[in-house]
Amino acid sequence: MSSAIDKVSAQIDANRAGVIQRLADAVAIPSVSGDAAHRPQVIQMAQWMAKSLEGVGCENIKFKELGKQTLDGQEVSLPPVVFADYREGKADAKKTVLVYGHYDVQPALKSDGWNTEPFKLEYDEKTGRLYGRGSTDDKGPVIGWINMLEAHRQAGVELPVNLKFVFEGMEESGSVGLDELIAHEHAQGSFFKGVDACCISDNYWLGTKKPCLTHGLRGVAYFKLHISGPAADLHSGLFGGVVHEPMTDLFAIMSKLVTPQGDILIPGIKELVTPLTDEEFKRYQVMDFSVQDMEGATGSKTTIADDKEKILMARMRYPSLSLHGIEGAFSEAGTKTVIPAKIVGKFSLRLVPDMTPAKVNELVEAYINAEWKKLGSKNTLRLEAEHGGKPWLADPNHWNYEAAAKAVQKIYGVAPDYTREGGSIPVALTFAETLGKNLLLLPLGRADDGAHSTNEKIDVSNYVEGSKLLGAYLHEIAAATA
Amino acid sequence: MSSAIDKVSAQIDANRAGVIQRLADAVAIPSVSGDAAHRPQVIQMAQWMAKSLEGVGCENIKFKELGKQTLDGQEVSLPPVVFADYREGKADAKKTVLVYGHYDVQPALKSDGWNTEPFKLEYDEKTGRLYGRGSTDDKGPVIGWINMLEAHRQAGVELPVNLKFVFEGMEESGSVGLDELIAHEHAQGSFFKGVDACCISDNYWLGTKKPCLTHGLRGVAYFKLHISGPAADLHSGLFGGVVHEPMTDLFAIMSKLVTPQGDILIPGIKELVTPLTDEEFKRYQVMDFSVQDMEGATGSKTTIADDKEKILMARMRYPSLSLHGIEGAFSEAGTKTVIPAKIVGKFSLRLVPDMTPAKVNELVEAYINAEWKKLGSKNTLRLEAEHGGKPWLADPNHWNYEAAAKAVQKIYGVAPDYTREGGSIPVALTFAETLGKNLLLLPLGRADDGAHSTNEKIDVSNYVEGSKLLGAYLHEIAAATA
Ligand SMILES: [Zn+2]
Ligand SMILES: [Zn+2]
Ligand SMILES: [Zn+2]
Ligand SMILES: [Zn+2]
Repeated sequence: MSSAIDKVSAQIDANRAGVIQRLADAVAIPSVSGDAAHRPQVIQMAQWMAKSLEGVGCENIKFKELGKQTLDGQEVSLPPVVFADYREGKADAKKTVLVYGHYDVQPALKSDGWNTEPFKLEYDEKTGRLYGRGSTDDKGPVIGWINMLEAHRQAGVELPVNLKFVFEGMEESGSVGLDELIAHEHAQGSFFKGVDACCISDNYWLGTKKPCLTHGLRGVAYFKLHISGPAADLHSGLFGGVVHEPMTDLFAIMSKLVTPQGDILIPGIKELVTPLTDEEFKRYQVMDFSVQDMEGATGSKTTIADDKEKILMARMRYPSLSLHGIEGAFSEAGTKTVIPAKIVGKFSLRLVPDMTPAKVNELVEAYINAEWKKLGSKNTLRLEAEHGGKPWLADPNHWNYEAAAKAVQKIYGVAPDYTREGGSIPVALTFAETLGKNLLLLPLGRADDGAHSTNEKIDVSNYVEGSKLLGAYLHEIAAATA
Repeated sequence: MSSAIDKVSAQIDANRAGVIQRLADAVAIPSVSGDAAHRPQVIQMAQWMAKSLEGVGCENIKFKELGKQTLDGQEVSLPPVVFADYREGKADAKKTVLVYGHYDVQPALKSDGWNTEPFKLEYDEKTGRLYGRGSTDDKGPVIGWINMLEAHRQAGVELPVNLKFVFEGMEESGSVGLDELIAHEHAQGSFFKGVDACCISDNYWLGTKKPCLTHGLRGVAYFKLHISGPAADLHSGLFGGVVHEPMTDLFAIMSKLVTPQGDILIPGIKELVTPLTDEEFKRYQVMDFSVQDMEGATGSKTTIADDKEKILMARMRYPSLSLHGIEGAFSEAGTKTVIPAKIVGKFSLRLVPDMTPAKVNELVEAYINAEWKKLGSKNTLRLEAEHGGKPWLADPNHWNYEAAAKAVQKIYGVAPDYTREGGSIPVALTFAETLGKNLLLLPLGRADDGAHSTNEKIDVSNYVEGSKLLGAYLHEIAAATA
């Protein structure tokens, strides 16, 4: 097997100019899903994907249409989800890996502050960086799979697993229609049949030096706290001291949700958090990360904890509660002496196992109702639970992860970090829950790639070694005992 | 004296059509001070004032120029302050009353929701109301003085006091330049020499039935609480739980300023409030006011107190603290999961004797600094004390008030209420402090006149009886023992 991986890797090195050109071709198509004017280019990118997949031997390539949407005031077609199979040899005896990625990108204008044209891939040989919109999110990783398949064919190495590709064109714009498509295909289609494990490459290393495997994501529960009293905004000269002020009530309630040290004060929340094990704690200890990295990321010395492990755990394995703002209060510059009559406080929790939006909603509602009664206000309170998403956690000892770890060791010569992310990637939860299979997040890019920012880049080494890593991973999958 | 007052009053009744026409002529000039495009009409209104004052026998009429200002991006001349004297007979033996009013108005467009043209006085004979911008704020009361002078001349009654008029054209736009002019005239001019008492008619009855004399105004102290931490806004998925969040700190501090029952929690504030006397309490008991009036004014049942006296005292004689809003937080509709990096909480206190902005600033700063230390946050706090204004309180047993009370009794057949207002009228404080003389607020209009609103009105009875009241007041001043 090692010889097979070596051959594929050598072929990718030999193709270096070609794989960079392939990424340049993809970046040149401004497949911005959030802008109706760019919708034709998103669809052009779907066609480019289909052609590229066909070119490296994929079959059964399908455009799954999702209908129409209204965007920027016009009705436009949703870009298709591209399905494709890769099978060769004794396919029925092989494991099957489902791969998800997205071919759409965030908007980008040179005038936003880019040093180069965002939709022209620029290779800076001095730094070894490839600049361009989509270079790391998510065209680079998506094309990594294509590079890997191409190298197998050119090197005459048979791919020892079957692949099922799902490439979406609306990820940066809310993945409209994707959940329904996955549910529908799972229930009625045949595409997802026989999948043994899933892999998504659409996140980043924790730092800039060491690869990682990501096995968890926090969920979210978002709340709007409506408080209303007077029929209209009042002047504090005339009414200050006379009426119960909705703002005073809101501050009283929202100040009781979380302490300045980040402790959530809602009874029952902490009890839902799964206890820390020694095995897990060791993962934080070895991670390629420092307090200074976090200070760099926030541009400040404002971490609650002063040691690396606590900071990592705060992001990855503990819940948090943030106060986001108030709708309906005085938010401009200046010094208006208004008593706002009707306001909406916004806050959200990040959820970890075994919290769920449903459980959290119940606890938040009970607590806020109890605290509200204590206030003795004549105003009116209404709590609205907005969008929620469950946390996701995979078993990092599953053969899917073991295969990826061996591949990292093979390509990079190090054991990967096992990270969890603080935010959500809803599609990961959808695949894991719908298919009931182990899912791996296998990032190619680095923490400083600047996805969604100006001057987005992927290091050429991450792109090239990443393409090799995807191949090595699949060979290790084949060798693993399921 | 009674016969003199009766003669003047009868003359005003005889002139009823004429005094209504005079108000119509003034309302027809859209002297909107807040709009550069209307500046010529403000200056036209100053000329109208000068001509009208001259027509009723005023002398020494002067336009006090205030220079220029930049408004709506253009440099425009400030409207002049109109000075005028009224003296006749043995003037040196008479008392002198300083009268202030303003000839500018708030903006008004029919499309804002007016039932009639705002700059055309409409007399609704069914309701007895005169509708038009400025009808009650402040053209009606200002012209009341002119009506009164005209009636004296026509009835052949000598005015038993001297008058000094100060009519401003920038009141609705911050009284730019007025304080400096008053200070300068007091120090170097001769206009204010010999003033014995002051009178301003630019506020309203407490209700709709009973006249009042107003002898107090609350002051204000406005604060901006700056809290900053991270260099830029952060995503709560990545950083929630990791950093000290400025919003959490802000809610912790601002929730400790005032209770939902309106109690100010800043130590030392309550001790500054002058104690309630029996005499004062009786004033609240007799006031023409009910809990229902307040519920009508706020369009809600949200008064903290459930009895009339407590509600009135909350507005008039106790301080209050209101939270106005947050600059820099998420204030739009929707569900953004942002951790705001740099925010400014806004709050203000309404001040009563013996609170001053200076004393309040000191107490607020000490308290917030102490509470901030308790939080143990690594973020940065800065408290900024914004504009402040002292409270004003006059002695309602002064002969100036006794004269006004007798005049109310004479014209309306009732004893007036002695009210204090919850808001500020900065010019009242300026005159009272600069001249060191007793100042009376003598409103002509009713609480429901809708100054600054659509369909502003003055009841024709308030306008006509009010013109008589101003005359009667001056005769009682002359009769009073100073
Ligand atoms: Zn992505
Ligand atoms: Zn993205
Ligand atoms: Zn006014
Ligand atoms: Zn006004």
